[in-house]
Amino acid sequence: MKPLILITNDDGVASRGLRHLVHLAQEFGDVVVMAPDRNASGLSTSITCMRPLHAYLADKEEGVEYYACDGTPADCVKMGFEHFCPRRPDLVLSGINYGSNSSINIIYSGTMGAVLEGCLNGLQSIGFSLLSHKPEADFNACSPYIRHIIRQVLQKPLPDFTALNVNIPHLPAQQIKGIRVCRQARAAWEDSLEKRIDANGKPFWTMTGRFVCNNPDHDTDEYCLSNGYVSVVPVSPDFTCYQHIPNIKNLEL
Amino acid sequence: MKPLILITNDDGVASRGLRHLVHLAQEFGDVVVMAPDRNASGLSTSITCMRPLHAYLADKEEGVEYYACDGTPADCVKMGFEHFCPRRPDLVLSGINYGSNSSINIIYSGTMGAVLEGCLNGLQSIGFSLLSHKPEADFNACSPYIRHIIRQVLQKPLPDFTALNVNIPHLPAQQIKGIRVCRQARAAWEDSLEKRIDANGKPFWTMTGRFVCNNPDHDTDEYCLSNGYVSVVPVSPDFTCYQHIPNIKNLEL
Repeated sequence: MKPLILITNDDGVASRGLRHLVHLAQEFGDVVVMAPDRNASGLSTSITCMRPLHAYLADKEEGVEYYACDGTPADCVKMGFEHFCPRRPDLVLSGINYGSNSSINIIYSGTMGAVLEGCLNGLQSIGFSLLSHKPEADFNACSPYIRHIIRQVLQKPLPDFTALNVNIPHLPAQQIKGIRVCRQARAAWEDSLEKRIDANGKPFWTMTGRFVCNNPDHDTDEYCLSNGYVSVVPVSPDFTCYQHIPNIKNLEL
Repeated sequence: MKPLILITNDDGVASRGLRHLVHLAQEFGDVVVMAPDRNASGLSTSITCMRPLHAYLADKEEGVEYYACDGTPADCVKMGFEHFCPRRPDLVLSGINYGSNSSINIIYSGTMGAVLEGCLNGLQSIGFSLLSHKPEADFNACSPYIRHIIRQVLQKPLPDFTALNVNIPHLPAQQIKGIRVCRQARAAWEDSLEKRIDANGKPFWTMTGRFVCNNPDHDTDEYCLSNGYVSVVPVSPDFTCYQHIPNIKNLEL
């Protein structure tokens, strides 16, 4: 039986990045899409606890069923594999996202929230993001790298409880230098909420900000991306900071 | 100058668990509250990118300003420390949450999303959760443990880029055996979405499920909690799975 690949994203079921990923995944197996019915960016690994969820067949193209769900990307993964996949998926893919999910962006990312949800359910899971927010973003240069990563993971499963965060520079194909396995760079968004006054004199704040990542080390995703490499960071839904367990024990809690 | 403590939660500004934490924190410093204006459970580290945010003074009691925000818990931390704190906070506290944020629950938790947001901004950050969803939950037995942890962290700062996930069993004071520093247990929610049919014959799904954590190891939060200990897990907004970087390099990506 062909591998079954469940695909989602956070930009929504209508995203061109999602379609591009579907077309690549079809080279490797059967594909089911369950994606948010709208742009669901910034939703992290959030789930919908406070209202019911709905899902419906939004499109069918080249044999692929595109389901839309009014929940979060993580909801989409649960919905997809629990209720809409004909068998247990061999792979969960998320993306291709418009914009970076490298460095600290992972913690806000719905794309990567879906990946963590797949991973904690024991499913091989990979998120793909392109470093461009432009509507005219060109996904073609991504294709060989995405194909290669899908092929390798289908042949050699990822370590237990581990998923991949793949970010791809938005460069012409000949300028991408290769793939680097690396770690998440330390960074933050500064001055992330800016105040304005609305037509009624009432204040409101808009999410904006400056991405600050000073002198990233050579083994980080930010360094690799800014030097023309595709970055691959192994990530886990185990948030324990193992290295600091002894220090915390010394706090005499 | 007294320490400044920024407090948030995900159960909303009206939560009794929040008030309990405020009263404890007042013993150590000045307190500012910025909390969601409603129950914001399950929102993880999500942020609000797609609409403007609002915040207002909802209550003032015993000198503490309780601000409400229509965003997520992570938004509340950004809003609080960027715009509503009179100086940089010495501590960010989140909770006391109704219900466990141990084990895999951390990845969905708005309580802990706020904590990760505080931590990545370089603020000492701690989340507190009580293992009861009951409206009549008794927070009194938590008090000595919360006091002790706040005192220790104010005296001896946490390691860089590290926060604490504190869960407290819902037991009478004399049955709580102490505090254990531990790691996040491996677990998952199974069959998390259940289908029903609404009055118009249309399907909908509700988040529910079974929490499955088989034979947790003795060094995990689940084991410690089920044996009457307060669990403290050091966590980080760095999701890199360092132990598996060599394995992923062997995938020949």
